[in-house]
Amino acid sequence: MAKTNALITLTTDFGYQDGFVGAMKGVILSINPRAQVVDITHGIPRQNIFAAALLIADTLPYFPKNAIHVVVVDPGVGSARQAMAAVTEHGLFVLPDNGLISFLARKQRVKQTYAVTNQELCLDRISNSFHGRDVFAPVAAHLSLGIPASSVGPDLPNFQTLDFPETRKSESAIHGEIIYMDAYGNLMTNIPSELLADKPSWRIEAGAHRVAGPARSYSDVKTGEALFLKGSNGFLEIAVNQGHAGRQLHLSLGDKIYLGPS
Amino acid sequence: MAKTNALITLTTDFGYQDGFVGAMKGVILSINPRAQVVDITHGIPRQNIFAAALLIADTLPYFPKNAIHVVVVDPGVGSARQAMAAVTEHGLFVLPDNGLISFLARKQRVKQTYAVTNQELCLDRISNSFHGRDVFAPVAAHLSLGIPASSVGPDLPNFQTLDFPETRKSESAIHGEIIYMDAYGNLMTNIPSELLADKPSWRIEAGAHRVAGPARSYSDVKTGEALFLKGSNGFLEIAVNQGHAGRQLHLSLGDKIYLGPS
Amino acid sequence: MAKTNALITLTTDFGYQDGFVGAMKGVILSINPRAQVVDITHGIPRQNIFAAALLIADTLPYFPKNAIHVVVVDPGVGSARQAMAAVTEHGLFVLPDNGLISFLARKQRVKQTYAVTNQELCLDRISNSFHGRDVFAPVAAHLSLGIPASSVGPDLPNFQTLDFPETRKSESAIHGEIIYMDAYGNLMTNIPSELLADKPSWRIEAGAHRVAGPARSYSDVKTGEALFLKGSNGFLEIAVNQGHAGRQLHLSLGDKIYLGPS
Repeated sequence: MAKTNALITLTTDFGYQDGFVGAMKGVILSINPRAQVVDITHGIPRQNIFAAALLIADTLPYFPKNAIHVVVVDPGVGSARQAMAAVTEHGLFVLPDNGLISFLARKQRVKQTYAVTNQELCLDRISNSFHGRDVFAPVAAHLSLGIPASSVGPDLPNFQTLDFPETRKSESAIHGEIIYMDAYGNLMTNIPSELLADKPSWRIEAGAHRVAGPARSYSDVKTGEALFLKGSNGFLEIAVNQGHAGRQLHLSLGDKIYLGPS
Repeated sequence: MAKTNALITLTTDFGYQDGFVGAMKGVILSINPRAQVVDITHGIPRQNIFAAALLIADTLPYFPKNAIHVVVVDPGVGSARQAMAAVTEHGLFVLPDNGLISFLARKQRVKQTYAVTNQELCLDRISNSFHGRDVFAPVAAHLSLGIPASSVGPDLPNFQTLDFPETRKSESAIHGEIIYMDAYGNLMTNIPSELLADKPSWRIEAGAHRVAGPARSYSDVKTGEALFLKGSNGFLEIAVNQGHAGRQLHLSLGDKIYLGPS
Repeated sequence: MAKTNALITLTTDFGYQDGFVGAMKGVILSINPRAQVVDITHGIPRQNIFAAALLIADTLPYFPKNAIHVVVVDPGVGSARQAMAAVTEHGLFVLPDNGLISFLARKQRVKQTYAVTNQELCLDRISNSFHGRDVFAPVAAHLSLGIPASSVGPDLPNFQTLDFPETRKSESAIHGEIIYMDAYGNLMTNIPSELLADKPSWRIEAGAHRVAGPARSYSDVKTGEALFLKGSNGFLEIAVNQGHAGRQLHLSLGDKIYLGPS
């Protein structure tokens, strides 16, 4: 049963210089000319599975539940790593089994996973360096035509997972860290924002910095000053109003954050 | 009355590393799965309202009149700045009331503006740092379903405007400045090209440079040489044939331009 | 005869800062609101016709045969260079006659080429610096409505071509060179992969480096080590597993490659 408005999203680290993304779109539209192909981003930091896993967990659940999401950050392309399809509460994912789906799986139930082994759904010649074009794109396109997810291959009983860097709670404080910096220089921590609900007077220390907050919005402090606030993805975020927190506070990924009484 | 081919464009400074644009697209397509979402650019210089205002005035009028344009360059997100919808002769705009619409309003009539206050058109939880996802995208998606613009909220009698840097005319010359540099290094001035019509022999001086022209096209001069010509947006432009005028002539935004008799 | 699902792809060197791409999309959708506009990339290295010619040859044949491909890398805009339309076995191309179609023409038959001279298919005012918006986009949009390719103008009996840097074969070796570096730093050579079929023990030397291979995939060597393998576009490729071959091996475009007995 062909679907008129099949929606396929693309998230990769392919960048914007080369033809890789274009080739994937060509393959998809050759198989399903009615597919609607939507770019999420192709600017994931190169080969950074962790950053991609965060991004898709924060972003892709906003799509309709019938969307098909292709995610290709694939340093192990051509190796023994599996290709997989995952049926979740919010859409169907086609991606390498290298941990990409880890953080999404913390937020919603992954109902079923399959190993992609059915070569009839792939291009005739499968290269060893570009499975985005030869495997993931055509499999997603065939799925968008309405075949069941199980046609891609056998059940995949376990999939690879990345460790989420959990916070550590002492008696009177929470110890976290910076896990992502966005392109504005805003620093996302691993401390869930809801922890502030019953600790309204707690403050963040990061490196040598005492950061004002919790602020309601960036503009609660003067231009160029640092603050922390509830980030748009549910975690505490450290920012500089109209500035670049990472550079200004000399903070980067992995740096420790302390949230405690002021 | 649902519209089959509702067209929604996105213009932001979100860049291409993060999931912000993807989240907006997900929100739109969840509300109106038939919307056609078109990327204008997400590479507006960060938090540069002026550059964005120029871009949308030069670019978005090329779209069909029934298009809905979402523009998010929003350093004041979460502050008291209003969200607005603007009905113009060339499409409906949904954007922060921070001056973004200023230069478009110089070119075409803004028929009506509304403050966006109707939270039923927004996501259930509105963050204070990402109104692109929580306000502008869902409001545009609801508008694309055919509800009247007035449903977003009350009339907004005045909207914020940026000053356009006007030229200064002396008896025998026009004093202007460089107001934008594109990614090729071409320099856009604030001098309307039509001023050349009755001054065919006038020439541009910029800094220490006498610039050849008015040229018909870049290739009127040798590779690597500077020229000025009528830019594609109606203003005089300074360029270097197959080169980067900004770097080569040591000119940048705000630098003064003199147009006068040769 | 209007086509419901007309597919128009865009490949340019316009980058992601400016409104050029957006203006082209607006022009297309104003002429054919049902066109599906697909971004290939706008990050072609600036004014690099050679890189663009490689990219479209490797990428655009993956699209359905009825696709219309607009390619704009156009340092000679406004000069005497022709605009052309090319009917090929895999789609209709609208682009400057500056060699862009050269390498595609090595892979598939270019059935017919036309000079674009019919100004009724262009915007009313044609600038001398932005034919992407004023010529290529509107011509492609009109073609997508189903008019014959010959309506764009007269036959173009010859079109410009770029020289492909051919390999040189001596008795016991093949001398090639590096012709492209992708954004990962992988180095594409001009040596067709099939040459390895009857030379399974031949090895690559590049500069001072002896490169392991032919490998089956990047992960055949340790992280950080160099290898060569059959690239996804049919040519031998030099790479570093999870690294940047160009920087690590100090190799760049034009550097000589030697393939011979180990």
